[in-house]
Amino acid sequence: MGRYDKPILVFQTDFTYAEGAVSSMYGVVKCVDRELEIFDGTHYIPRYDVWSASYRLYQSLPFWPEGTIYVSVVDPGVGTPRRACMAKTASGHIVVTPDNGALTHLARYMGITEVREIDEAVNRNPNTRGTSVFHGRDLFGYAAARLASGLISWEEVGPAYPVDEVVCLPMAEPALEDGLLTGIVDIIDPNFGNAWTNIPISLFERAGLSYGDRLHLILEHGDEVVLDTELPLCHTFGEVEAGELLAYTNELMNVSFTMNQASIVERYGIGFGGDWRVAFEKASETSI
Amino acid sequence: MGRYDKPILVFQTDFTYAEGAVSSMYGVVKCVDRELEIFDGTHYIPRYDVWSASYRLYQSLPFWPEGTIYVSVVDPGVGTPRRACMAKTASGHIVVTPDNGALTHLARYMGITEVREIDEAVNRNPNTRGTSVFHGRDLFGYAAARLASGLISWEEVGPAYPVDEVVCLPMAEPALEDGLLTGIVDIIDPNFGNAWTNIPISLFERAGLSYGDRLHLILEHGDEVVLDTELPLCHTFGEVEAGELLAYTNELMNVSFTMNQASIVERYGIGFGGDWRVAFEKASETSI
Amino acid sequence: MGRYDKPILVFQTDFTYAEGAVSSMYGVVKCVDRELEIFDGTHYIPRYDVWSASYRLYQSLPFWPEGTIYVSVVDPGVGTPRRACMAKTASGHIVVTPDNGALTHLARYMGITEVREIDEAVNRNPNTRGTSVFHGRDLFGYAAARLASGLISWEEVGPAYPVDEVVCLPMAEPALEDGLLTGIVDIIDPNFGNAWTNIPISLFERAGLSYGDRLHLILEHGDEVVLDTELPLCHTFGEVEAGELLAYTNELMNVSFTMNQASIVERYGIGFGGDWRVAFEKASETSI
Repeated sequence: MGRYDKPILVFQTDFTYAEGAVSSMYGVVKCVDRELEIFDGTHYIPRYDVWSASYRLYQSLPFWPEGTIYVSVVDPGVGTPRRACMAKTASGHIVVTPDNGALTHLARYMGITEVREIDEAVNRNPNTRGTSVFHGRDLFGYAAARLASGLISWEEVGPAYPVDEVVCLPMAEPALEDGLLTGIVDIIDPNFGNAWTNIPISLFERAGLSYGDRLHLILEHGDEVVLDTELPLCHTFGEVEAGELLAYTNELMNVSFTMNQASIVERYGIGFGGDWRVAFEKASETSI
Repeated sequence: MGRYDKPILVFQTDFTYAEGAVSSMYGVVKCVDRELEIFDGTHYIPRYDVWSASYRLYQSLPFWPEGTIYVSVVDPGVGTPRRACMAKTASGHIVVTPDNGALTHLARYMGITEVREIDEAVNRNPNTRGTSVFHGRDLFGYAAARLASGLISWEEVGPAYPVDEVVCLPMAEPALEDGLLTGIVDIIDPNFGNAWTNIPISLFERAGLSYGDRLHLILEHGDEVVLDTELPLCHTFGEVEAGELLAYTNELMNVSFTMNQASIVERYGIGFGGDWRVAFEKASETSI
Repeated sequence: MGRYDKPILVFQTDFTYAEGAVSSMYGVVKCVDRELEIFDGTHYIPRYDVWSASYRLYQSLPFWPEGTIYVSVVDPGVGTPRRACMAKTASGHIVVTPDNGALTHLARYMGITEVREIDEAVNRNPNTRGTSVFHGRDLFGYAAARLASGLISWEEVGPAYPVDEVVCLPMAEPALEDGLLTGIVDIIDPNFGNAWTNIPISLFERAGLSYGDRLHLILEHGDEVVLDTELPLCHTFGEVEAGELLAYTNELMNVSFTMNQASIVERYGIGFGGDWRVAFEKASETSI
C-alpha cells in the first residue's frame, strides 16, 4: 500500500504548542508508519472545552478528503472510565476521540454511522504503560496511526457499540415562528471576533428575509439582554464602514454577526453555548 | 506528474490557529490533489495588516525553491470588488493574494513579471457558493491547488492585467546625504523585539561606516522624537551586554537596532511604517 | 535514495510564528532537498531559555523514529564563539544545536555518544554571508538538511570533539533518604499548568509509596516556602474534584503535581530550575 492509499491524519487538541506534547504525539505516529501524512487541525482548542472540540470538527472535517482520520484530543477525563472511541461519519470520515461530547455537532449535522470503543489491550502503545495522563500520545494517536497504516482493520479497533450511546451535549435547535428566528451563539471566532449562530441562512430566506434587509437582533445571556440593536444582512464585511455592525452568512452557511474589522465578541463580552440566545426579526420600517 | 514535480504551497494568513479556518483551507487543497505539499508560512500576521503581509512575503518567499506558490490571505476587503490575483516574481515564484498592497515589497525589491486576475467562474470552489467571507478556503487556496496540481495552466488562472496596476502601498526610500542615512522602520520583529529599518548595510558602507563604529540614531514618530541615542554597529547581539543597545545587519542585509536579549520595541513602544522615520550618522568622537 | 530513506527533520526554536523566520528556515531546507520531511517540534520555547530547550528535547526526541534529526535553535549567543554542533544520542537520534546547554537533559538521561562541531566553511549557506544573526536559517537548518539528504556524511559535518566537553547546565539529582524524597521542579507545563519534578515514580515506589497514598509536599523557592500541603498520589486528574490538588505520574514517568482542571503554576506562581526544590514524604495518618 503506497503513501497516498493511506488516509491523512489531522489532529486537534487543547495542548497548544507551548511544550513538547504535540511533537511526542506525532513522533509516535511516525514510529508506527513513516509514510503517514500528518496535519495540524488546531492545537488551540480552549482547555477542556469539549463543546469547542465538537464545533471545530463540524467546521473543518467535511473539507478534508473522504477517509481522512481526524484525531481530537480534548480530554478532561483522561484515564477515567469515559470511552475512547473511533466513529465513522456519514461522509466517510473517521473521528478518533474520547467519547465525551466531542461528536455532538457531527452527530447532529452529519450523522454518525458506526462507533467502536478502542481496545486498549491491543491499540495502546505498549511502551507507555505506567502513565495515564497522555492518551493523545499513548492511545488516540497510536491507534489512529495503526488504523491509517493498515496494521489493524476497522473491526480490530475494538468492539462496536450502539451509535445512540455516543455522548451528545444538549443542543438548542434553531426555529422560525411568526417571523421570529431564534437560536444560540453556537461558537465565536476568537481571532476576528465574530459571533456565529446556529441559524442557517436558509431559515432566514424562509422567513422572507434577504440581503440588504435590516434586522432587529436581541442577544440574551441568561437573564441579561446583552445586545438589542439593528443591523443589515450583508454578503460581506466591507459593505458597512469599519466598526459598524452587520449580519452575514458565514462559511458554514449560518448567519453570524460582527463588526467590520473589529471584534463584537470583545466589545460586548459575548460567549457561546446554550445560554447565549439570539432572536432576529425584520426591523420595522420606522425604527432606527 | 509526480509529487516532486508539483510546486510546494506555502500559506500565510491572519487567521491564527484559534479556530478551524486553516484546517478547512488545507483540507480543500488535499481534496483537489492529495499529493500537494503544504507548509505554514505564518498564520499570525496581525489582523487586516496588509503591510505586514507584504513584508513577510519579502522576508520568506525568496528562500523557498523556485516555482513555490505562496498563498497570502490578509483580506479585509474579502467579497468586495478588490482583485484576487496570482503574480509571478522575477525569481520565478508565484504569489496568490488579494491585490490589496500585499505585493508592495516584492514589487519594489524583487520585481513582478506577470499578474493575472483569478477567474472566479472557473477557479472558485463550486461547493461553497452562498458565502462570501472565506476566500482563503473557497478561492485562493482552491485556485492555488488547481494550479499546483496541473489541473489548470498559468493562462487558465484568469485574464492577465498590466503589472503596473498592481496595488502598491506608499514606501519611503532609504537615502544617504552628507553622511546622514535616512529611512524608516519597515517592520518590527514582534517576538525578539527588534526594529528593522529599510536601510541596507551596503548604504552604511558607502557612507564609510563599518562594524565597530558608534552611530548616532534618531527615531521619530510623526512629530515626536522617540529615541535619540548612540549605539555601536555590531555583527551580532552578544557583542554588547544584555540589555544594551546595538545596531546590526539583519538576515535581509538591512540595518536593524535592538537591545541584546531584550525588546527595544516594547521598551520604547516602537511601531513600523512610513511615519516611523530613522536617521543614522557616525557619532562624533566627543559625544558619549 | 528515496524519500523514506532520509531522516525526518524536527525543529524547535524560540522564534514563535509571529514573523517569517520559521518559513525562511524551512524554505532553505527544501532548497537543499525537496524530498525532506519537516515537522514542527515547537517554536514556542521561551525566548533565550536554553534549559527549556534541553527539557523539550528530552521530552519529545525519544518518541521519534531512530535516525530523526532534531534541530534546536535557542541561541542567545548567535554569532559569538559558542560551538555549533551535531550530537548523536545513545538512542540513535541526532541533535543539531548550539552547544550552549541544550544537550543537558539528553546527556544526563539518554547519553551522547558522539559530537561534532559544524564546519561553517563547508556547511553554512553560502548565499547568506554578511549576516550573523540567523543561524537557524543559515547554519543549523542548512547543515541538517545537507546531512539528511546525504549530501554530506556524518564525518563531513566537521571535526569531532570529546563528548565530555558538551556544555551541561548544573542539574540537581533526585534523592531518597529516610523516607524523604527530594528533587526539583524540572519544568512546568505552561498550558495545563502542571509542575513536573525530576523524581521518578520508581523512587516513590522504592520509598514504599503507592497510588492512593496521601503525600506531604513542601515546595521551596530560594528561602521561601511556596507550598506546604498534602495531596493524594493518583493515576490521573479525574480522581479528585476539579480544582483539587493531586500528584501523579507524568508521561515521562516522573511525579508531577497540579490541580484537576486548573493551573497550580498560575495559582502559586511556580517556576522551574535548580532553586525550585520539592520534598515529598508519606503524610502522617493524623494530619489533615
